[in-house]
Amino acid sequence: MTPDPDRFLADLHALRRFGAAGVGKGVVRPAYCEADVAARAWLAERMAEAGLAVRYDPMGNLFGLAEGPSLLLGSHSDSQPEGGWLDGALGVVAALEVARASRAAGGPPVSVVSFQDEEGRFGVTTGSAVWSGQLSLAEADRLTDHAGVALAAARAPMAGLAGAFVDPGRFTGFIELHIEQGPTLDSAGEQIGVVSDIVGIRDMRITFDGQQNHAGTTPMHLRRDAFQGLAAFNALLEERFRNVVTPRTVWTIGHVALHPNATSIVPGRAVFSIQWRDGDADRLGRMEEILRATAVEVAKARGLQVSFGAMLGLEPVAMDARLRAALEAGAEQVAPKRWRVLPSGALHDATNVARLLPVAMLFVPSIDGISHAFGEDTAEADLVAGVRVLAAAVDRLGRA
Amino acid sequence: MTPDPDRFLADLHALRRFGAAGVGKGVVRPAYCEADVAARAWLAERMAEAGLAVRYDPMGNLFGLAEGPSLLLGSHSDSQPEGGWLDGALGVVAALEVARASRAAGGPPVSVVSFQDEEGRFGVTTGSAVWSGQLSLAEADRLTDHAGVALAAARAPMAGLAGAFVDPGRFTGFIELHIEQGPTLDSAGEQIGVVSDIVGIRDMRITFDGQQNHAGTTPMHLRRDAFQGLAAFNALLEERFRNVVTPRTVWTIGHVALHPNATSIVPGRAVFSIQWRDGDADRLGRMEEILRATAVEVAKARGLQVSFGAMLGLEPVAMDARLRAALEAGAEQVAPKRWRVLPSGALHDATNVARLLPVAMLFVPSIDGISHAFGEDTAEADLVAGVRVLAAAVDRLGRA
Repeated sequence: MTPDPDRFLADLHALRRFGAAGVGKGVVRPAYCEADVAARAWLAERMAEAGLAVRYDPMGNLFGLAEGPSLLLGSHSDSQPEGGWLDGALGVVAALEVARASRAAGGPPVSVVSFQDEEGRFGVTTGSAVWSGQLSLAEADRLTDHAGVALAAARAPMAGLAGAFVDPGRFTGFIELHIEQGPTLDSAGEQIGVVSDIVGIRDMRITFDGQQNHAGTTPMHLRRDAFQGLAAFNALLEERFRNVVTPRTVWTIGHVALHPNATSIVPGRAVFSIQWRDGDADRLGRMEEILRATAVEVAKARGLQVSFGAMLGLEPVAMDARLRAALEAGAEQVAPKRWRVLPSGALHDATNVARLLPVAMLFVPSIDGISHAFGEDTAEADLVAGVRVLAAAVDRLGRA
Repeated sequence: MTPDPDRFLADLHALRRFGAAGVGKGVVRPAYCEADVAARAWLAERMAEAGLAVRYDPMGNLFGLAEGPSLLLGSHSDSQPEGGWLDGALGVVAALEVARASRAAGGPPVSVVSFQDEEGRFGVTTGSAVWSGQLSLAEADRLTDHAGVALAAARAPMAGLAGAFVDPGRFTGFIELHIEQGPTLDSAGEQIGVVSDIVGIRDMRITFDGQQNHAGTTPMHLRRDAFQGLAAFNALLEERFRNVVTPRTVWTIGHVALHPNATSIVPGRAVFSIQWRDGDADRLGRMEEILRATAVEVAKARGLQVSFGAMLGLEPVAMDARLRAALEAGAEQVAPKRWRVLPSGALHDATNVARLLPVAMLFVPSIDGISHAFGEDTAEADLVAGVRVLAAAVDRLGRA
C-alpha cells in the first residue's frame, strides 16, 4: 500500500481554500459556518470518488463508509476562529489518502470521518461527544456560542443532509493523525510522535478573600492582601508539586482577577484558575490534594478566606496497545530513530471515541510548537511521513 | 480658649445631611456636585456668623478669612463617590469651631479653609494643588472625570461665587485635623496622632512579555509564563526589601492584568502596578533601584521581556517643627499618654500647602481603620479630643 504524496498534499492545500484567512496559510472555518459546510461538501465528493458511502449524521459529523467492518481514520475539518490549515484537516485528508491507497492495493477496508465542532464553538469536541454518547443531541442543541447562537440553530442549514447516527459497531478501531501543537518533536528534530495517552485535565477556580484597604495607611503586617495570598500559594505549589510530578506534568494559572484591581488599594479579593494535566489519574488526584491543602494553609496563615469552585475533570485515556504497536512499527519503518512515544497534552476527538472503540494517535511536528494561530505549519516532508506511517500501520493491522 | 463640643458635633452632623447616602453616616458629595456646592454655601454662612470674610476662589476653594495675619486651619468638604462623614469634613468643622472659640476668647486670629476636590474626582488634591501653584488653572480645567466631564464645565456653576485667589502671604501656617484612615491609633487605644511627615509615593507600571502558549502541550521547562514572572518578582522583592524598609514602609501590587487571561492558555503578558510609600526620599530611591534590578533579573532568568512605564512620584513632606511641637504639647495636655507621633501614609491637602507655608497635621482614630466607605466612623469622644488639641495648639502658638 503506497499513499501518493502529491495527491495527498494537493488535497490538503485544496481544503485550505475553504475559509482561507488571507494571512499565510491560515483558515477561518469554525463549525457550521459557510466555509465549514462547503469544505464538508468538498470532502464528501472526495470520499465518494474514493468509493466510500457518504453519510452526515444529525450533528454534521461527516463519514465516508467502507463496506463491512473497517478501521475508522480521521479527525475534524472545522477550525479555530483564527486557525491553522492543519489542525484537524491533516487527519481527515490523510485518512482519505490511506483509504484510497488501501483500496487500490487491496488492503484492509478504511472508513474516514470528519467530526464536527472539535474546536468548541459550542462545547468541547462537541461532534464526537454526541456521537460517542457522552452528550445527548438535545443537550448539545441548547449550547450557545459567544454570540448567543444556539447549536440547534447553527446546525439547521445542514438538516437536509443528515441521516441517522452511524453505528460504531461497524468499526474495529480509530486512528487519528494530528499535528503535535507543542514544541517537543520540532525542537528534537524528530518526524513522528506515537501517542501513549491523552492526558487528563483538572480545572478549578479558587478565590481568596482578604481585606480591601488603603495602600498608604495599612501597614504591611496588618494587611490581608488577596494577591499576596495567590503569590504565596503559587510559590508553595511549585515546591510541593516537585516530588509528585513528572516532566510531562503541566499546571497553569492562566486567569487572574483582582478586586478592586486599583493601584492604590490593597486587593481584597483574588479569583484565579488553576488547571493541571497528567496522563495518570492518581497523580491528578494527589495534585488536587496538595493544591487544596496548600490553599487552606496559605489562607489560614494570612487571614484570608479560601473558597473552591466546582472542579472540571476529564480522565486520562491510554491508547490501545495493539493499534499503538502498529504505529510504532510504522514509525520505525518510515522515520527510523526520528520518532518517539509521547503523551498528548491537548484534548482530541480520540478522547471521546475511546469510549466506543480501541483508539490510537500519531503526531507530526508543529514548527516552533505554534497552533491555534494563522502561523501554524509543518514541513511537507513531515506531513508526508505522517501519512506514510498511518498507511504502514493500517497495512500491518490488515495483515495481522 | 474653650471649644464647645456640642456646637462642634452639631455642626459636624449638620454637614453630613448634604449628600447623605442613607446608609449609616455615609455621604455622597464629590467635588462640584449639587450637595457639595450646597454644603459649601452652608459652611460659608457659618464662617460669616463667626465673623470671617467669606471668599471662594476660581477653583471653588472656600476660605473664611480673619483680618490681618492669621493661622489657616481646615481640610476639604468634598467626599469620595461612596464616602464617610468625617474624611475632610472633620478638619473643616473643627477649624470653624477653633476660629469661633479663639475669637470669643480673644485668642490669635484663625482663618478657615475647605479645599475643593481633595478626593480627586479630576486629579489628586486638585483644589490645593492649584492654590499652591503646582497645577495651573488652565491645566486643571482640562482634567476630566470618569464620565468624561471636564473640570472647566464642572466648576462653571460656581463661577458667580468666585473671587480672586487668596494670597497665601496672609497666613502664618496651616494645620489640618483629619481622621487617620488606618488602624494604628484605633488598635492601640490611643486618641491622637501627631503627624511627623506625609510619606512620599512612587508608582510604576511594569510589563512582562513572555510567550502565549497552549496550557496542555507546552512543557513547564519550555514556558515563558508572564504570570510566573510576576510571582517570582513579587517574592524576590519581599526578600530584598527586607534590609531596606522600616515598619512604616509599604508597597503594593494592586493592579494585575494578564493576557489573554484564559484558563487553558499560558499567560503571554502580565501588566501590573507597583506602588511604594515611605517618609524618606532616599529609601524610596533605593527601593526603586532594587525593584528595577529585580524585574530585569527575573526577566532574564525566565526568557521574558520587561518594560517599565513612567514613574509617578510625590516627595515626602516633613511637618514644621514649631507647629508640630504645639500639637504635641496640646496632645499631652488633652490626652496624656494616649497619643503618638506617626507618619501619614495617605496624601492630604497639607502636602500641597507645604510648598507655601509651614504645615502640621493631627489625626484622630478611624474605627477599624475604615475610610473611603460609608462605614467610616470615629468615637465622638475622640472627635472632641481632636478639636481640643487643635485649640490648645493654636492657643499656645498665639502666646508664643
